[in-house]
Amino acid sequence: MGFDLHRLEPGYPLIIGGINIPHERGCEAHSDGDVLLHCVVDALLGALGLPDIGQIFPDSDPKWKGAPSSVFIKEAVRLMHEAGYDIGNLDATLILQRPKLSPHKEVIRDNLCQLLGADPSVINLKAKTHEKVDSLGENRSIAAHTVVLLMKK
Amino acid sequence: MGFDLHRLEPGYPLIIGGINIPHERGCEAHSDGDVLLHCVVDALLGALGLPDIGQIFPDSDPKWKGAPSSVFIKEAVRLMHEAGYDIGNLDATLILQRPKLSPHKEVIRDNLCQLLGADPSVINLKAKTHEKVDSLGENRSIAAHTVVLLMKK
Amino acid sequence: MGFDLHRLEPGYPLIIGGINIPHERGCEAHSDGDVLLHCVVDALLGALGLPDIGQIFPDSDPKWKGAPSSVFIKEAVRLMHEAGYDIGNLDATLILQRPKLSPHKEVIRDNLCQLLGADPSVINLKAKTHEKVDSLGENRSIAAHTVVLLMKK
Repeated sequence: MGFDLHRLEPGYPLIIGGINIPHERGCEAHSDGDVLLHCVVDALLGALGLPDIGQIFPDSDPKWKGAPSSVFIKEAVRLMHEAGYDIGNLDATLILQRPKLSPHKEVIRDNLCQLLGADPSVINLKAKTHEKVDSLGENRSIAAHTVVLLMKK
Repeated sequence: MGFDLHRLEPGYPLIIGGINIPHERGCEAHSDGDVLLHCVVDALLGALGLPDIGQIFPDSDPKWKGAPSSVFIKEAVRLMHEAGYDIGNLDATLILQRPKLSPHKEVIRDNLCQLLGADPSVINLKAKTHEKVDSLGENRSIAAHTVVLLMKK
Repeated sequence: MGFDLHRLEPGYPLIIGGINIPHERGCEAHSDGDVLLHCVVDALLGALGLPDIGQIFPDSDPKWKGAPSSVFIKEAVRLMHEAGYDIGNLDATLILQRPKLSPHKEVIRDNLCQLLGADPSVINLKAKTHEKVDSLGENRSIAAHTVVLLMKK
């Protein structure tokens, strides 16, 4: 499983699943602040019993500094294949109040499938609002939950 | 997996798993605001790789407008059977500060089993408070998390 | 699956996975307030379709009153073996703003493996901050999410 949350601040791009989403706020982060990809990477690493995203891709290492999150996904997929697994099923839920994600959902999911090298039939993406309560509901943060089931190749 | 959260407001009924729970607040929502059933539907749809509850049951469609959430569950179960799956295991966690859910837990779970057509041995329900912090802890919202594992029939 | 959240208050010890973590706040709770062990117990009980931690270990029962959470874990593991299951995979995510958990992560995970009688390769532990927002981000609470997959022995 994976969980991630980023603060939304004015003046930053909002990148979700590798896609730049027009919004007046975005994620202030060392990397591109991609809450969905970070969460998916953590779910994959967790299922493999590997250290988490911060340990495998420390921003103190020049190799990963400033890298787009797609690089982390590809490395997680490589580690998964190396361990002899494929994705059986992956289900991710984004939680954000704004903007409405429905116009972007298919593009995000397509890109996620491509990054994972996975068939769209096993990759699912949902978006929920937080009903205007707490930081998630007040457009001050964005979160993602992911559950993944790996299958032996 | 599924996640759902609803705001609690005075003057609305509180319906959880199809059961009307006495409380001074309830869910303001287009439908009956049943956070548990919505979350379970999303978990089922997610596991099947289908679009989410808002896309499959748009309240702009007269067919679903004002429908009780039990209708959504039954349709999700039909889609699951159609795809050749049964519930292997479903575990749901409700998060709410008040009222105490223990007196209602078995009734809710029984109804959930019936709606899902599933044996009680594979359906689990937990309730947690949010320790008086944030909207969930201040009786201003209610949330549910669900994980489901489907098995090929 | 399991979820747990405890409020952090000055003057209490912070015990995570059975390990005492130096911090100026800790969990005010009937028991030792171990958010990780409570969450793992609930995940195990949920997967087994058993009642939740509050029902199986009521603090009104002198047998469990004041018991360290390790006792609950061991009982959950006994119930799991009795039902004919072993842990296939367990993945837990801790959410807390402070203190930094990385120096303690391996000790916590080792202790968790020992309590569960499980090989480290199938037990995973992640820690995330809550980016300074909401009670979790303001050092006023700590939460844990756990997903476990059981396998027939």
